[in-house]
Amino acid sequence: MLNQSELDRVFHALSDPARRGMVERLARGPATVSELAEPLPMSLPAVVQHLQVLEASGLVRSEKVGRVRTCRIEPEALRSAERWIGQRRASWERRLDRLGTFLAESEATAKPRSEK
Amino acid sequence: MLNQSELDRVFHALSDPARRGMVERLARGPATVSELAEPLPMSLPAVVQHLQVLEASGLVRSEKVGRVRTCRIEPEALRSAERWIGQRRASWERRLDRLGTFLAESEATAKPRSEK
Repeated sequence: MLNQSELDRVFHALSDPARRGMVERLARGPATVSELAEPLPMSLPAVVQHLQVLEASGLVRSEKVGRVRTCRIEPEALRSAERWIGQRRASWERRLDRLGTFLAESEATAKPRSEK
Repeated sequence: MLNQSELDRVFHALSDPARRGMVERLARGPATVSELAEPLPMSLPAVVQHLQVLEASGLVRSEKVGRVRTCRIEPEALRSAERWIGQRRASWERRLDRLGTFLAESEATAKPRSEK
């Protein structure tokens, strides 16, 4: 599980469409920096800057072999962010379920069914 | 499904620990602005500013009755962000599964088992 400032960095990294595009590309497999840059309408230095934000967040890691830097997804950071959101969503849904049960029971008490 | 700039706003809203704390509190049920502010080590105007970011992202909505503003979670934005991350995670895991199958098959071809 990530701590607060790690979660800050992961969600901040995901708050930009170019960076989400890079994560989307890397989810399909490793890519070089030029491959990541290719579909993006921006300069290579801008791509590298986005990549640095992704690496600082722990969502991506990269490795340089010779002159080529290859980037990969780090699934654990992705999973942690998903888990954080999922737990809040689940907590909200449980509350809604309890509310539904409460309302159904109140209704049953208020008007006892005629049959049986 | 949210569009790109809506996803930008949701992930940006979640990139701050105070705002995540407010989402966490609201996932357990509606709260007034003062109730949201209570555990936070900041001024009321700062809380209101965070709340505006949350409302602009669609994660939270609020309603004023008399002098009291009550805030609620909007689960759809939460679900969309969760889904976006989940799809990338799943795409990465599928790729890993295919890689595993490929390696297992390559190994089976390379050294046929002696038994059977």
